[in-house]
Amino acid sequence: MYLETIEKTNDIKKIDKANREALAEEIRKFLIEKISVTGGHLGSNLGAVELTMALHLSLNLPEDKIIWDVGHQAYTHKILTGRKDGFDTLRKFQGMSGFPKRKESDCDVFETGHSSTSISAGLGLVKARDIRGEKYTVVSVIGDGSLTGGMAYEALNNASKLETNFIVILNDNNMSISENVGGVSKYLNNIRTATGYLDLKKGIFNALQGTKMGNKSINGIRKAKSSFKQLVIPGMFFEDMGLTYLGPVDGHDISAMMKVISDAKRVEGPVLIHVLTQKGKGYTPAERHPARFHGAEPFEIETGLPLHARTEPNYTDVFSTIMCKLGQRDEKVCAITAAMPDGTGLKRFRNMYPDRFFDVGIAEEHAVTFAAGLAAGGMKPIVAIYSSFLQRAYDQMIHDVCLQDLPVVFAIDRAGLVGSDGETHQGIFDLTYLSGIPNMHVCAPKNMWELSDMMKFAVALEKPIAIRYPRGNAYSGLKDHRAPIELGKAEWIYTEQEIALFAVGSMVKTAEVVREALKAKGYSVSLVNARFVKPIDEEAIVTASKTHKLIVSMEENVASGGFGEKVLDTITKKELPVAFVNISIPDAYVEHGNVEILKQKIGIDAESIIAKICQMMEKIDKA
Amino acid sequence: MYLETIEKTNDIKKIDKANREALAEEIRKFLIEKISVTGGHLGSNLGAVELTMALHLSLNLPEDKIIWDVGHQAYTHKILTGRKDGFDTLRKFQGMSGFPKRKESDCDVFETGHSSTSISAGLGLVKARDIRGEKYTVVSVIGDGSLTGGMAYEALNNASKLETNFIVILNDNNMSISENVGGVSKYLNNIRTATGYLDLKKGIFNALQGTKMGNKSINGIRKAKSSFKQLVIPGMFFEDMGLTYLGPVDGHDISAMMKVISDAKRVEGPVLIHVLTQKGKGYTPAERHPARFHGAEPFEIETGLPLHARTEPNYTDVFSTIMCKLGQRDEKVCAITAAMPDGTGLKRFRNMYPDRFFDVGIAEEHAVTFAAGLAAGGMKPIVAIYSSFLQRAYDQMIHDVCLQDLPVVFAIDRAGLVGSDGETHQGIFDLTYLSGIPNMHVCAPKNMWELSDMMKFAVALEKPIAIRYPRGNAYSGLKDHRAPIELGKAEWIYTEQEIALFAVGSMVKTAEVVREALKAKGYSVSLVNARFVKPIDEEAIVTASKTHKLIVSMEENVASGGFGEKVLDTITKKELPVAFVNISIPDAYVEHGNVEILKQKIGIDAESIIAKICQMMEKIDKA
Repeated sequence: MYLETIEKTNDIKKIDKANREALAEEIRKFLIEKISVTGGHLGSNLGAVELTMALHLSLNLPEDKIIWDVGHQAYTHKILTGRKDGFDTLRKFQGMSGFPKRKESDCDVFETGHSSTSISAGLGLVKARDIRGEKYTVVSVIGDGSLTGGMAYEALNNASKLETNFIVILNDNNMSISENVGGVSKYLNNIRTATGYLDLKKGIFNALQGTKMGNKSINGIRKAKSSFKQLVIPGMFFEDMGLTYLGPVDGHDISAMMKVISDAKRVEGPVLIHVLTQKGKGYTPAERHPARFHGAEPFEIETGLPLHARTEPNYTDVFSTIMCKLGQRDEKVCAITAAMPDGTGLKRFRNMYPDRFFDVGIAEEHAVTFAAGLAAGGMKPIVAIYSSFLQRAYDQMIHDVCLQDLPVVFAIDRAGLVGSDGETHQGIFDLTYLSGIPNMHVCAPKNMWELSDMMKFAVALEKPIAIRYPRGNAYSGLKDHRAPIELGKAEWIYTEQEIALFAVGSMVKTAEVVREALKAKGYSVSLVNARFVKPIDEEAIVTASKTHKLIVSMEENVASGGFGEKVLDTITKKELPVAFVNISIPDAYVEHGNVEILKQKIGIDAESIIAKICQMMEKIDKA
Repeated sequence: MYLETIEKTNDIKKIDKANREALAEEIRKFLIEKISVTGGHLGSNLGAVELTMALHLSLNLPEDKIIWDVGHQAYTHKILTGRKDGFDTLRKFQGMSGFPKRKESDCDVFETGHSSTSISAGLGLVKARDIRGEKYTVVSVIGDGSLTGGMAYEALNNASKLETNFIVILNDNNMSISENVGGVSKYLNNIRTATGYLDLKKGIFNALQGTKMGNKSINGIRKAKSSFKQLVIPGMFFEDMGLTYLGPVDGHDISAMMKVISDAKRVEGPVLIHVLTQKGKGYTPAERHPARFHGAEPFEIETGLPLHARTEPNYTDVFSTIMCKLGQRDEKVCAITAAMPDGTGLKRFRNMYPDRFFDVGIAEEHAVTFAAGLAAGGMKPIVAIYSSFLQRAYDQMIHDVCLQDLPVVFAIDRAGLVGSDGETHQGIFDLTYLSGIPNMHVCAPKNMWELSDMMKFAVALEKPIAIRYPRGNAYSGLKDHRAPIELGKAEWIYTEQEIALFAVGSMVKTAEVVREALKAKGYSVSLVNARFVKPIDEEAIVTASKTHKLIVSMEENVASGGFGEKVLDTITKKELPVAFVNISIPDAYVEHGNVEILKQKIGIDAESIIAKICQMMEKIDKA
């Protein structure tokens, strides 16, 4: 009833103060209903309803700027900026994105998807504002999880020098801090927001420096220091970095937050507002199972149970199982995740081998160099990170792992197209960034059994090696093709003539379809499972060139620096008399949507591939 | 006299306590003498003499492990581990490295070169030690500069949970902290190292929580809090993160440091020792000009002046000059460096436009996303970062700059081989990691004038664009070839037939030599300055294929994902009837040494290239 009246930005300001809570409840209901159908990020959005409302009420949008760290919590922001109708197509192809997008709204000022970027981006906007003599307010909203990422610290460290206003909102859903600090915090909050506070900070020094330090005052220092630490954690931490700390404030109390935001706008310098929220707030299943409702599949509202029960294991499950076996077999095997024990499938390993499991937080850079340290100390670490997040640790792979040729295994989940998360999450660069690194080995399994075999192979190799596998169901076809993994050796699945399909990982399944179709057209077609992208199996390419007219490379990676370019290099270097077609992802970001649709759009689905091959074969046969 | 007796690890322990200072002075003299001849990192090593001695005296090497962050301060460590003689070949081809190298000594446990990795690596060693039931001590030595890098914070954050010993030494050469804290710090230090300290921390809480909060006690809180902040900064900061803070201690007082290290070894958990040192200590020119003596060229000991005065400008100088012009011409132009105003040449821009200059510290990730924020706010930021350090911000280029197609210019110095710094500093991956990113433009100038022209072009483009240029003298040849830069267009310098050389940036100069030699052998040779690696000039390749038998690509980048692969792609895609040779860096790390020697070794010098081309031409002419 109130939600109906929200049609565009700032409509919320017309809602009577007394009815704001009712609107919050309507938004919650709306989110639960819509996401139960489309799927999407539920928990974080239910937690941020009132915070978003308070921001919209306190700010002047679109002049003022809000940057949403990670961006998956911006659903209420989308509702309040006139995008309510978009929820029917949420995360669907050409529908509304699940993340802030500049093309969707002038209230989305900076796009996000990965963690810990919002303070850096916000500080950039602040500096641009000041240089250009503009006057708007900039707010970066960052979760407590994102604050474990090093670049957030780099940004806070830089924000400290600022002499104009910049608001960082710490959206903290870990309630333990609130309980520790209790009522005293409110007092400290009042002290700090008082206009005189900044002056008070100056000139108080000397109280103890002038005092003679007898035993009594030492005890005083100890006692007071410990007490104050307890009182103001984490306020003191931020104040030490040069930010004014306000809070903690109840993140479900709109009026309280509006007051703090109003106070914060008056601070001449960087200010951190500590907001306490509850993930999944108002929907019991999401409150109870935060991990499951982080990124939810469609579910039944009453029970919270998924609408479509999973019948087949996905690659993450396969990885999960083999990790437990490897951990049992070899006490040197250990596992590292960057805040994703669930997503990567390492939860079971953690339960079985807690001493050899490390969740380092959202800190991919540290994760990789930490793994290098473990390896230098005689362990066999396996780092499980999604393809698009491992981009964060590119330098650490070059500088810390591969330069020293240390035995670190990279288990790269979500490689290739991931679908509804869109641009920021597509894992389409890993073959490029991995293949350029000396000493690195790069491989990809064709099906579930091969992932297990490759993991065993990788741990035994004792060299840097990356195994990339896609999101979604693990392929269970080609079960009988399970020749032992050999370093740098491809697997010939069907050996015929004319056309040789060289497919990487997930593309082997597509290649089977392509092959059947081509055979139906009368062609003779071989299928080679590449297995290794680096080192590439040059011998297999030479062999293929002897009995085939055309070699086709197939990969879910951008063309530049990918598998196809290496195949072509080999063909050219060895002067092989064979034509070549490169099937890979074109040079553009790939939007969100169903993976099958996306593949059609970018031309790496079976049908597009068949067409390209037929066209080439016609040309060859004519020549 | 004492230095003579240091022939292997632990020999220092035989030196009488009374003679340690004399040894320190001998080491200093030795370092100054040797580095004045070979060049190398002087200031940081002079600052770390006593600290290194104290570590060697306190630890049991090689069982105990020292990790040197960045690694350029490990010269005394090299002396004390029997590598004194190596200083005659310091940083020379096949001589001793300027950084820790595992193959040089069993006391070099982890290789470094980039910043902020040592705590992550050290924590990895600690965990490996504990899991394997070993007992050695792990020490990470990190500078205050390296502590601005986010991954150091990620690592500290993870270290806090540790329940076994791990020593982080903060080698702090900013004396302001010492002066602030003064005599009280010594007291606090004693309190903290006392064995009872850890217990004291527990159970003191409640002092204020039980108190009624009248005005008097509020004032008390304010007063005490500010006082304590002053007293224990940065101790409190680290204690807030869960580390035991010891210090500050005089980093030139061996006995004092040995006492603190001995105390630190008894702490069951992570401990940070705050050591105050002076960069360049004991050599007046280095004390006075820390930037110049950070990485010094050979110099005259008496005056500190460089032995070989620079006569020609290098690319950094050219960049420096054009930046000042661009800054004057357009008030939106701003400049960002990650702790290298000198190295990148931005010092002049800083002096002229301090409001539009940003030194963010060693924080490449933040630098790039901050630039994206500036661009989103309407500015035209230029980010100047060395090629090998920009690897740190790979994800930020993908996720924050290029996804939103923001007008950020990347000025990439030290691209290609850098020489004496070696493996960790060679800028040989940038064409690979940049070319794979959608919306990115990538170019490289052939000479000094072209760098200026490209910078102007880049600022006017208002898209993400990277310009890479090498270390060392700016090429001043081909002055008359200054056709306007056009997007994605190569420049035909000499248009002949038979062989077409397509050279990127620095390789244009090499290509001129190659061309002359080939012409002397009777070949007709065109020379094309590629200018753009992305988008590549397909038309120029098509044109070349019509009148040439052979196209040769030439670049200072690894083959995988580089320029050559793109040329070959074009040749194949367009089915051009032309042979191809790819001149690029092979798939291996390139060691330290003179750049010309390194080029010969890896086959990208003129002579090697000429031989490869002649071989191919003979083959073509025979066919």
